[in-house]
Amino acid sequence: MQFARWPRPPSEKKAAFGLLFCVLKPVDVIVMTPRDQEIQRRTELSVTRVTKAVFPNTTNHHNTLFGGTALAWMDEVSFIAATRFCRLPLVTVSTDRIDFKHPIPAGSIVELVGSVIKVGNTSLQVQVDVFVENMYLDGRERAIHGVFSFVAIDEDKRPVPVLPQV
Amino acid sequence: MQFARWPRPPSEKKAAFGLLFCVLKPVDVIVMTPRDQEIQRRTELSVTRVTKAVFPNTTNHHNTLFGGTALAWMDEVSFIAATRFCRLPLVTVSTDRIDFKHPIPAGSIVELVGSVIKVGNTSLQVQVDVFVENMYLDGRERAIHGVFSFVAIDEDKRPVPVLPQV
Amino acid sequence: MQFARWPRPPSEKKAAFGLLFCVLKPVDVIVMTPRDQEIQRRTELSVTRVTKAVFPNTTNHHNTLFGGTALAWMDEVSFIAATRFCRLPLVTVSTDRIDFKHPIPAGSIVELVGSVIKVGNTSLQVQVDVFVENMYLDGRERAIHGVFSFVAIDEDKRPVPVLPQV
Amino acid sequence: MQFARWPRPPSEKKAAFGLLFCVLKPVDVIVMTPRDQEIQRRTELSVTRVTKAVFPNTTNHHNTLFGGTALAWMDEVSFIAATRFCRLPLVTVSTDRIDFKHPIPAGSIVELVGSVIKVGNTSLQVQVDVFVENMYLDGRERAIHGVFSFVAIDEDKRPVPVLPQV
Amino acid sequence: MQFARWPRPPSEKKAAFGLLFCVLKPVDVIVMTPRDQEIQRRTELSVTRVTKAVFPNTTNHHNTLFGGTALAWMDEVSFIAATRFCRLPLVTVSTDRIDFKHPIPAGSIVELVGSVIKVGNTSLQVQVDVFVENMYLDGRERAIHGVFSFVAIDEDKRPVPVLPQV
Amino acid sequence: MQFARWPRPPSEKKAAFGLLFCVLKPVDVIVMTPRDQEIQRRTELSVTRVTKAVFPNTTNHHNTLFGGTALAWMDEVSFIAATRFCRLPLVTVSTDRIDFKHPIPAGSIVELVGSVIKVGNTSLQVQVDVFVENMYLDGRERAIHGVFSFVAIDEDKRPVPVLPQV
Repeated sequence: MQFARWPRPPSEKKAAFGLLFCVLKPVDVIVMTPRDQEIQRRTELSVTRVTKAVFPNTTNHHNTLFGGTALAWMDEVSFIAATRFCRLPLVTVSTDRIDFKHPIPAGSIVELVGSVIKVGNTSLQVQVDVFVENMYLDGRERAIHGVFSFVAIDEDKRPVPVLPQV
Repeated sequence: MQFARWPRPPSEKKAAFGLLFCVLKPVDVIVMTPRDQEIQRRTELSVTRVTKAVFPNTTNHHNTLFGGTALAWMDEVSFIAATRFCRLPLVTVSTDRIDFKHPIPAGSIVELVGSVIKVGNTSLQVQVDVFVENMYLDGRERAIHGVFSFVAIDEDKRPVPVLPQV
Repeated sequence: MQFARWPRPPSEKKAAFGLLFCVLKPVDVIVMTPRDQEIQRRTELSVTRVTKAVFPNTTNHHNTLFGGTALAWMDEVSFIAATRFCRLPLVTVSTDRIDFKHPIPAGSIVELVGSVIKVGNTSLQVQVDVFVENMYLDGRERAIHGVFSFVAIDEDKRPVPVLPQV
Repeated sequence: MQFARWPRPPSEKKAAFGLLFCVLKPVDVIVMTPRDQEIQRRTELSVTRVTKAVFPNTTNHHNTLFGGTALAWMDEVSFIAATRFCRLPLVTVSTDRIDFKHPIPAGSIVELVGSVIKVGNTSLQVQVDVFVENMYLDGRERAIHGVFSFVAIDEDKRPVPVLPQV
Repeated sequence: MQFARWPRPPSEKKAAFGLLFCVLKPVDVIVMTPRDQEIQRRTELSVTRVTKAVFPNTTNHHNTLFGGTALAWMDEVSFIAATRFCRLPLVTVSTDRIDFKHPIPAGSIVELVGSVIKVGNTSLQVQVDVFVENMYLDGRERAIHGVFSFVAIDEDKRPVPVLPQV
Repeated sequence: MQFARWPRPPSEKKAAFGLLFCVLKPVDVIVMTPRDQEIQRRTELSVTRVTKAVFPNTTNHHNTLFGGTALAWMDEVSFIAATRFCRLPLVTVSTDRIDFKHPIPAGSIVELVGSVIKVGNTSLQVQVDVFVENMYLDGRERAIHGVFSFVAIDEDKRPVPVLPQV
């Protein structure tokens, strides 16, 4: 059983863990290791949200959010989520492919949600979803999705485990 | 019965409304008006979170978060929460007394949480709590608290009701 | 005794100190203590002005000055006025209620004026008025008013007197 | 007699015009033209001050104010002073030689003072002095001095007189 | 023969095209189509460079360049290179995996070089290399590498060819 | 003697050095001193380019590039070129007259090119040309030109030679 890549549900479903256990039948005994339990607990604690109003100082001449600004915000959200997970100094090592599904017009509200989705020995992967809302309408949709990878380092910049050995 | 100033619980307790009603005994029948129910529903939906890493570009020469930057962040969070509540154009009309309980050092994480706490006819009050976390330690504490007031306006800048008449 | 430039009516006639002395009758000889004189002198010296053109990077999607930006500017002006008064390290402890009387359109000029209005033992209160001018018309009016409080601190962050003992 | 280049005294001497006329003897009758009087009046009204605390977001890696930031601030101050003088749309056409007398350390207070010093038919010259103060000591000195030139334009970007014909 | 993915040499070798043809032997006749020639010409013209000094306003609390700032810069460079290639409105559609080879310390100089590397019908791929130099030493090394993809759009946001049909 | 890449006509044909050699007749053998050769080599190496898209966060209310922003960019480019030339700590000491030939509209691309043009004992002069391109048209023109002067300093802020003695 593979818990390292924890199947975190889409970020709006807080009830996910609840559901997870609702569907467990007595016969399917899941034995989570202490590490798995710790990962699950820290993953939940480290979910990070940033909400922004898209004002003119972040838009390009098409009057839509400047792509680079979106990337900078995503990096910050993922960095905070990863830091909250391990409470260690981190460096960004890479981003996976990032898709910009549609432009985000000025005057929108965007919410970025960062969640740890994979825990290695010295590394963490964080997914970031960017949702866009019209200021004057309920509802929202996902506009950008990306995955950022971090490595925990010590004072000499050498990789260290992201979780204490249990 | 006064629900207009909804006693929103401290921001981390998403389950608050659930709990509230769980503990009601059958004899204390609460009859919420449709407006009260809508306020409760929209209040919950409009809670807004912004998380920030306190980097050097937001700190003063004491190496702590510049107070004016904190105020600007609080205004943005409260504005988004109020907009999400009513989905109408809004202007800030005032801020109540704001206390800065202690300085926020560079290298902290701060999370701002904005929640509508009072619904008038054409106005909304939003409270903003600013929590500070050490990057490398679990736990956090509230560093700043403030209340911002907004009025919904139409195209001619005249006040309009924040909720449709029911 | 030199009242010629006292009370300094920082251009908008916040005539508070003026009023104070206007109601004095000739028989009530005023004996200012050395501390009062020093306060008067330093108050005058510490008046601080900041003038800004409201360009697109400080406006929201209504094309008016972002409220949070106004708050950040007000904090900086009041901080400088308080620092000039006591020449000591200071921390912001609170802001009183701030009223935004009307929106400030893009393309305006704003002038912020900060003046110390109350001197405690270890604390200072600074009022900030924000005046708005149309770029292409003479005249101006006050758009925002606020009071910011500061405490002087030593290296161990303990409150210290804002004025030397006389 | 040449009033076009009005010998505006160093910015701190508000009383200059008063003094000027105090020392006039009855025999030296100065006959100011209406235009000269208007220039004098508008010059006084348009003096513009901007005070700044030099925080880390405006400093370079020597921990002193980034020269480019100083230039940007000087341009804004001179633009506002020129706009207040003529209340017309303006474009910057040139800056004269600017000397940086000494670096401005982080943690200083700087005050920029812009004053119109020369009035042409369609152009204005504005001098900007940048004074630096130690936050924790009284007194200050001039660190930078520059002159910026502007031309007033109409909607078709053609030069227009900076003062109505009298 | 596939020239669409033009094997653009590392950015410092302007002489690359020259070299390419030097090594061609008479027997290997290359017949470039007009489109290939146009791609080659526009690729060369559109190389875009941005040089930056890493000052405190772009660094994190480790005193190294904030990853998100690097991404924002890379997006801007690649956007300009792509715009110069096709002179059409563009939207970012994705970024490929980006590797951050090592942190960039405050006080460095970085140079970003963006070059079109692949030309589709309505899309362009631009590679961005970020080189880091110590301010006080000659030489430099590549710190970050990424590829950004753009699509050209018309006024109705529909994809349009990046090159006129030849 | 290696003239192959010399004189480098940094792309806009600031043909100064070129002219120098054009007028040489074959009989006038040029004997460059080692210092001249080093200056020539380092001048070429230190040419610095910065390309920018003029987005709303850098424009004024006329929707053209804020003059102060242009000055800040020019200072940064010239500072980097001078640093690359001497690889020593530098301070800006002055700017010569700067002409803004025409406004730069939002939605343009600008390229700044900085080149060392004069080498003193402890000082360097760098010229900066700012070229403007329409995003959707080939071609460009020079919009601003300026010269910035720097002095190399040691740790005690005393001037030091910009080149080692040869």
